[in-house]
Amino acid sequence: MKKRLTLIKIGGNVIDDEAQLQQFLSDFARVEGHKILVHGGGKMATRLAADLGHQAVLVDGRRITDQKTLDIVTMVYAGLVNKNLVARLQQQSCNAVGLSGADGNFIQAVKRPVNEIDYGFVGDIHNRSVNASGIEAFLNAGFVPIFSAITHDGQGQLLNTNADTIAGSLAVALSASFETRLVYCFEKKGVLADVNDEQSLVREIREAEFLPLQQSGVVAGGMIPKLHNAFQAINQGVKEVIIGQASDLSSIDAGEFGTRIMK
Amino acid sequence: MKKRLTLIKIGGNVIDDEAQLQQFLSDFARVEGHKILVHGGGKMATRLAADLGHQAVLVDGRRITDQKTLDIVTMVYAGLVNKNLVARLQQQSCNAVGLSGADGNFIQAVKRPVNEIDYGFVGDIHNRSVNASGIEAFLNAGFVPIFSAITHDGQGQLLNTNADTIAGSLAVALSASFETRLVYCFEKKGVLADVNDEQSLVREIREAEFLPLQQSGVVAGGMIPKLHNAFQAINQGVKEVIIGQASDLSSIDAGEFGTRIMK
Repeated sequence: MKKRLTLIKIGGNVIDDEAQLQQFLSDFARVEGHKILVHGGGKMATRLAADLGHQAVLVDGRRITDQKTLDIVTMVYAGLVNKNLVARLQQQSCNAVGLSGADGNFIQAVKRPVNEIDYGFVGDIHNRSVNASGIEAFLNAGFVPIFSAITHDGQGQLLNTNADTIAGSLAVALSASFETRLVYCFEKKGVLADVNDEQSLVREIREAEFLPLQQSGVVAGGMIPKLHNAFQAINQGVKEVIIGQASDLSSIDAGEFGTRIMK
Repeated sequence: MKKRLTLIKIGGNVIDDEAQLQQFLSDFARVEGHKILVHGGGKMATRLAADLGHQAVLVDGRRITDQKTLDIVTMVYAGLVNKNLVARLQQQSCNAVGLSGADGNFIQAVKRPVNEIDYGFVGDIHNRSVNASGIEAFLNAGFVPIFSAITHDGQGQLLNTNADTIAGSLAVALSASFETRLVYCFEKKGVLADVNDEQSLVREIREAEFLPLQQSGVVAGGMIPKLHNAFQAINQGVKEVIIGQASDLSSIDAGEFGTRIMK
């Protein structure tokens, strides 16, 4: 039987809120079995850029990662945020090791090709970008990887990479060896039947229900691509994807957390 | 027979010089056996502090690590410098993993007690601060640890720690399991019989020669505490300490590199 692996992705809404972060780290440390945390940098990178007087470069409304921005996100994501998360998890007796995709060559990205827009130092990844055997050895040695959203191209260049995509690619790649659940922490309790009612949580969505839920309007807006990616992960071997609120994480092992997306 | 482990410490004179750094990384990648790199941050932390308008706080001429300074060194040492070193070593097929002392709880420091001066977030370490079995497992799994000079106190607090001391403490702690050589990269070729003549390199210093070399003035100034620390390491099990110039590192396995300090 495969061992269970839980991958959890958190973003700014958790990282920027001290009370929520403290609770989350304590709950994360208690999640059973192998686990991996993937994080972005929240507002700290924006704040540092502002303090340095560095204007975000936008082309057609898209944010560009120029050299200075790459340095800033490397400092904030892989340095300040990552090492503080690690120190606080170690305090909780969770054997965290902070990583970027460069470390151990665990995630190798491809610099986004320049078509209409040159996005700069942005790295695209897919499932085969992940060095699954290296990460598996790392997990089996008892370490809990804490991934910042920085990767590399294998040629010495660091790259800025979407944290949701990192979490998804890790989950798919590691599903060959682990029974994998992938958790996206989100500002709401999950998919809500009524977006204004936190009590209207939809507990489970199976693939056959996805289209009807879109047609009825329960799943709309930014939730559509989120669920689309979730079903893609499921169809590539991930056991379940959960979209939920970080503050409910302690219920995960009881199966009462967020919206579970399953085959 | 114990396996060989080489620990190398580099500082600003290597990190801040692009040509020298590139050569060093290529030579480091080729050093045989297990190895560990320990690095500071060079001038980049000072530059970032200046860009952020943060004045270094000095008390009685001593630099104080206040919260802002700790954030800056964490960003620069553990983020920007560390991850770029890792990406460039991976390019050289060296399986680098960037670490702070918090990662894997590998180095746990004690915040310096406040006596006359409050140094702020500075961590002191000794040989027992090092989680030798954890690092040994890491080395045996085929990883090359790249340590930045950031540690933690085990209670969630990151601490700024002297990189020379980290290298020395790692070397002593790992000497129980490895035949350890400890290399301090330095702006000169090593100890020079005539400080103005780079050709006058002293190849070897044994403990009995230390006092005569001080009396004759060959060893003077900042070299005295360096050698004192080296002999301390030797007396605690480190096989040899080498003080040399990074650009000569490629000769290390031929035994023709810097000044070797031996029992």
